[in-house]
Amino acid sequence: TRNIDLAVVAGDGIGIEVVEQGLAVLEAALTGSDVKVSTTPFDLGARRWHATGETLTDEDLAAIRTHDAILLGAIGDPTVPSGVLERGLLLKLRFALDHYVNLRPGKLYPGVRSPLADPGEIDFVVVREGTEGPYVGNGGALRVGTPHELATEVSVNTAFGVERVVRDAFARAQARPRKHLTLVHKHNVLVHAGHLWRRTVEAVNAEFPDVTTDYLHVDAATIFLTTNPSRFDVIVTDNLFGDILTDQAAAITGGIGLAASANINPDRTAPSMFEPVHGSAPDIAGQGKADPTATILSVAMLLDHLGLAVQSQRVEAAVAADLAERGNRVRSTAEVGRELAARVAG
Amino acid sequence: TRNIDLAVVAGDGIGIEVVEQGLAVLEAALTGSDVKVSTTPFDLGARRWHATGETLTDEDLAAIRTHDAILLGAIGDPTVPSGVLERGLLLKLRFALDHYVNLRPGKLYPGVRSPLADPGEIDFVVVREGTEGPYVGNGGALRVGTPHELATEVSVNTAFGVERVVRDAFARAQARPRKHLTLVHKHNVLVHAGHLWRRTVEAVNAEFPDVTTDYLHVDAATIFLTTNPSRFDVIVTDNLFGDILTDQAAAITGGIGLAASANINPDRTAPSMFEPVHGSAPDIAGQGKADPTATILSVAMLLDHLGLAVQSQRVEAAVAADLAERGNRVRSTAEVGRELAARVAG
Ligand SMILES: CC(C)[C@H](C(=O)O)[C@@H](O)C(=O)O
Ligand SMILES: CC(C)[C@H](C(=O)O)[C@@H](O)C(=O)O
Repeated sequence: TRNIDLAVVAGDGIGIEVVEQGLAVLEAALTGSDVKVSTTPFDLGARRWHATGETLTDEDLAAIRTHDAILLGAIGDPTVPSGVLERGLLLKLRFALDHYVNLRPGKLYPGVRSPLADPGEIDFVVVREGTEGPYVGNGGALRVGTPHELATEVSVNTAFGVERVVRDAFARAQARPRKHLTLVHKHNVLVHAGHLWRRTVEAVNAEFPDVTTDYLHVDAATIFLTTNPSRFDVIVTDNLFGDILTDQAAAITGGIGLAASANINPDRTAPSMFEPVHGSAPDIAGQGKADPTATILSVAMLLDHLGLAVQSQRVEAAVAADLAERGNRVRSTAEVGRELAARVAG
Repeated sequence: TRNIDLAVVAGDGIGIEVVEQGLAVLEAALTGSDVKVSTTPFDLGARRWHATGETLTDEDLAAIRTHDAILLGAIGDPTVPSGVLERGLLLKLRFALDHYVNLRPGKLYPGVRSPLADPGEIDFVVVREGTEGPYVGNGGALRVGTPHELATEVSVNTAFGVERVVRDAFARAQARPRKHLTLVHKHNVLVHAGHLWRRTVEAVNAEFPDVTTDYLHVDAATIFLTTNPSRFDVIVTDNLFGDILTDQAAAITGGIGLAASANINPDRTAPSMFEPVHGSAPDIAGQGKADPTATILSVAMLLDHLGLAVQSQRVEAAVAADLAERGNRVRSTAEVGRELAARVAG
């Protein structure tokens, strides 16, 4: 038997509810196999911060590191000043654990209504860089609160950081039927960072000659995500553009209730982290209204990352079947989880 | 009689064709009035750069400054290295002439098909900051072309720069029926710049107590532009987020063929500049296929800026009437211009 040591950061708001269902489906997927899961809950997020002032201590991080993977629900609460938990916990995990590939599929499942009139087939994946760009926290401010305030934010991009995520994106493109990679940036304005990205894509393309590439400015990418999302296969882009495009991608494929994500450390020097794209949604927290599907699809990505492809596919197939029949039926968080677990089990 | 001295930068590709029609409609709008237009063409863009290596000389800029306004078609060509004309010409004009308000309406005219299944009424305006943010050109690179390359881009935000554009946005919101202003930023990650923007909106709100405000992270804004664009009235945001959101706004309201924009210097210390949101579209240049409507709507914004509200409304009404009847009729650039000029004239 193989044991999977899973760190569980349920977090805030609906994070707690959706993670519960994610774990139930994970159990169901492994039933009858020789793989067992043991979970360690980590009390991180708004409650902990209010109680102790801590976001993520060195001890927390060291303990999380010993696990095989992390399942995260959602972090954030309006009672905590903006940025504290994002920078101090969520982004700290992504950076400290070197999650340089933030993988976010944009897939319109049959039966799901897109807000687009003519969505066509949508099936792409965004490879969002996760450890650089304007997310590095390399900003500052002078004379705060005066008429002479100056605030800066620095986007940091390195050949090392860009090349490794671009290579990962090429490999993913090569493994897909269409073998197409689109770089999204804004190299006509952000010339230094943009040209590094562009040159890197050109250079790494030599290692993947069967992958075709194109380039879109980020503004144009939002147009094509509206008018012709079928054109996309794999998108590679920086941390901030990836944040923006993946929310738009979620919107056109049925909403953030369905959008999964994986923060991957491809070198496996630290555990990867799986989380729905949505936030803690304090307005509906604790009411059993949250859709756990995004978390459950993130569990499928977790299984895949751990080499359990068959189980991963079973979870995704269960979600696909559920979505195909879902219609406008209103179910609680637990009901969706229960029905999906039942489908997965058999 | 009043004379309007107009600097005309037709630019590259379809810029030349659409500006011709824009000028024809401008003429038509002023026929019978005591306002005359005299135009000075400026040879700027790819052709000039290839011929002379120049983008925008001090003499060009000094000459442009003496005009009352600028009509710009489109700048850019694949034969010119990325960034050269954008930074050296288009952005140089916006920065040198202190176009701190980049105004971009997002309006779905009756008769125009939106790619959204259920667009509802869309009628908002984006006030995009035009002289700061990641557009300042404050980036750099080290060890270019080596495995140790480092490229940075710095977003610069000042209290002075943020406050003036926020105040302008509040004034615009106050003049609209719904009196609502949405700040879009990403203050949970870009904490220094984001908090400056947020505090500024709160502070300036005191001067406009009847304007309601809300806040959206830029990623969430792309969701609402897809699922509920009717919620927006005035959006105020930084230079880069504004670039992204206004292309998405164009997409949901019928495409960049219809999207107008104004680069405004509200203090009138230099001429404002009116330009369609679209680019030079080299693939269809010179074929009479470009839609001049975006330029013609930009001419309406120009007239309004020059205090010619009646004429501005006539141009917009002509466009609205044309769009209502347009259907799938295929017309050349000149035909659209001619029909719109005829509507405006009579
Ligand atoms: C909460 C926030 C810091 C985060 C991000 O910007 O990455 C979120 O929007 C996401 O996309 O996971
Ligand atoms: C051409 C480019 C520099 C420009 C911008 O980014 O502002 C364009 O996209 C626009 O929106 O006017």
